[in-house]
Amino acid sequence: MKNSTRSGVDPFIVMDVMEAARRAEEAGRHIIHMEVGQPGTGAPTGATKALSQAMEQGPLGYTVALGLPALRQRIARLYGEWYNLDLNPDRVVITPGSSGGFLLAFTALFDSGDRVGIGAPGYPSYRQILKALGLVPVDLPTAPENRLQPVPADFAGLDLQGLMVASPANPTGTMLDHTAMSALIEAAHGQGASFISDEIYHGLEYEAKAVTALEVTDECYVINSFSKYFSMTGWRVGWLVVPEDQVRVIERIAQNMFICAPHASQVAALAAMDCEDELQANLDVNRRNRALMLDGLPKAGFTNIAPPDGAFYVYADVSDLTDDSRAFAAEILEKAGVAVTPGLDFDPVRGHHTLRFSYARASEDIEEGLLRLQRFMAQRAARTTPA
Amino acid sequence: MKNSTRSGVDPFIVMDVMEAARRAEEAGRHIIHMEVGQPGTGAPTGATKALSQAMEQGPLGYTVALGLPALRQRIARLYGEWYNLDLNPDRVVITPGSSGGFLLAFTALFDSGDRVGIGAPGYPSYRQILKALGLVPVDLPTAPENRLQPVPADFAGLDLQGLMVASPANPTGTMLDHTAMSALIEAAHGQGASFISDEIYHGLEYEAKAVTALEVTDECYVINSFSKYFSMTGWRVGWLVVPEDQVRVIERIAQNMFICAPHASQVAALAAMDCEDELQANLDVNRRNRALMLDGLPKAGFTNIAPPDGAFYVYADVSDLTDDSRAFAAEILEKAGVAVTPGLDFDPVRGHHTLRFSYARASEDIEEGLLRLQRFMAQRAARTTPA
Repeated sequence: MKNSTRSGVDPFIVMDVMEAARRAEEAGRHIIHMEVGQPGTGAPTGATKALSQAMEQGPLGYTVALGLPALRQRIARLYGEWYNLDLNPDRVVITPGSSGGFLLAFTALFDSGDRVGIGAPGYPSYRQILKALGLVPVDLPTAPENRLQPVPADFAGLDLQGLMVASPANPTGTMLDHTAMSALIEAAHGQGASFISDEIYHGLEYEAKAVTALEVTDECYVINSFSKYFSMTGWRVGWLVVPEDQVRVIERIAQNMFICAPHASQVAALAAMDCEDELQANLDVNRRNRALMLDGLPKAGFTNIAPPDGAFYVYADVSDLTDDSRAFAAEILEKAGVAVTPGLDFDPVRGHHTLRFSYARASEDIEEGLLRLQRFMAQRAARTTPA
Repeated sequence: MKNSTRSGVDPFIVMDVMEAARRAEEAGRHIIHMEVGQPGTGAPTGATKALSQAMEQGPLGYTVALGLPALRQRIARLYGEWYNLDLNPDRVVITPGSSGGFLLAFTALFDSGDRVGIGAPGYPSYRQILKALGLVPVDLPTAPENRLQPVPADFAGLDLQGLMVASPANPTGTMLDHTAMSALIEAAHGQGASFISDEIYHGLEYEAKAVTALEVTDECYVINSFSKYFSMTGWRVGWLVVPEDQVRVIERIAQNMFICAPHASQVAALAAMDCEDELQANLDVNRRNRALMLDGLPKAGFTNIAPPDGAFYVYADVSDLTDDSRAFAAEILEKAGVAVTPGLDFDPVRGHHTLRFSYARASEDIEEGLLRLQRFMAQRAARTTPA
């Protein structure tokens, strides 16, 4: 059968890493996983308990397209708890993961051929989903001095219909403060571009609280998910916050595209929001891991890293070590037994010189991984340094 | 914020019916629900038990994009059990409901502006999802003598890039036999159109076994779901069967658009496939309800109905009774206390003259609903017939 042009989606290079790691494990090797983008923990105990109970009480048929009212209200309350914002629950839309949020947002706002600016490096699926919808992703190469986040000068005069930012970002973990966020929103609106803020890593921050775009303006789409802070990756449930006049539009698209987010996942998500103790314990592990990384990676020789304000990633410039991040990642897997992600998924141009390290696992794994990296790098330096 | 043209999705008229029914119930009235398109039963007991166990055993993180291998294998085995086909499990892709299957199929096959033929009447979301993706749905008005299913003459010379059929169909319940299916596939391929078969109601058939497009050709996309026969609507899990050379394309789109179908739902679905007793008991209820409908609806005066071979719908031509199915449905709700769906969602042109009756509920409800309809229609006839 003939395929569409829009179906020509780039493969994830990290998949090759994961497959190579799997083969190594199959062959009996022990691998430390610093390549995966999901928490090692599962849904909070209270969440799975609530679902088990709900399943005994009756059928979990379709919910309304906008999601369970109780969940929408609880999320609105979170905006009070986290940001001191008074959010109308009607503006909260439950989605099948942040993936569903992207599809809804892009469909509601953009027509075929419309241009949407995204920071490079950035989450690879932004680019691929935009292309799959017949839209045009416009990479905005970001500068280290801007924490690898876009600034207005990066898209001045680019004729964008949309701008999408992420804070904390994947793969860098860097954040936009209130001033930086405001400048981006103002510049986007100034050129008539819709503003979308991916806030999926909110809650996973270590120095300052992450800023939501809603602290700056109501005229934006905010995308979030239960996959990261709430540790519910496989459950495919997230949310959008949209302006009041956008709710009806989103509702109609969601009715047709998804019918609803998984009912069982919505039940579990609602309960997860009251599992603060377990979630904070998870966060403590991340905090400890981050400290280990910030100490251990430079010791191994990865000194040029973006400030990892949040999420569970460290993004390192390794241009002093290699011109081929893919081969370098393969070498690290082969010789150190540590799986890491080459930057090419996040930045097709400059990713030849970068690696992403994830620290979303148990601290013992992180410690062991860092030891292995230090040993490997010391040997590598000895090999490549003239005697 | 400015919305895209593609976001201009038509509202579901059935939603107004459901809202009116809800208000009536809130006001203390008892309403029989013949408007809903989902089984009244929940997931099989074995499915929810399996999920409760899995939740205790460990985190349900992301699965691979194509879905749990055990589930893909079990579905391939179903094609042996149901159709005596030997299906390669690699061709089975787990999707977030049939909705996810539509998004994947349309994205893989069609570019902006491509024209896709769909039968009218038909499932309204076909039209809306196609539009939301920047594609062009082409309604093919079907003839009663063809069981309200498309035939090759309906799209000869229409320059379609795709043809999508459903058997058993929503809203009619009519099926395509092997000859009719073959003719459509041949005609579609003859004009270079990709063929997509929506088989979501397979398993819910009452006279003959439904024919899968895979009995005719491997060069097609088949869409199915756990929502209907397996009674798992709210779980959002379904599947695609695609040609071998399409698996990689679909995998890449799915990785980006969805990451994966809900892990918990995949676990439940796998167990549901071995709950044959419970599922056949559900089917027996449907079979009894169908017999009640075929007896009771003509008695009430709804005599002009499409042959309901499968699914759980009866589609009636009511042009002898009204020119305004929407007002008629409102009148039936108001005076008979029965919620039914006007045909406009399924056929924007001819739906002014049709109603859809769903019988996916308990038999006592169906009996009561039919009695109410008979009483109401007798009174209506008495009112409108000159003395």
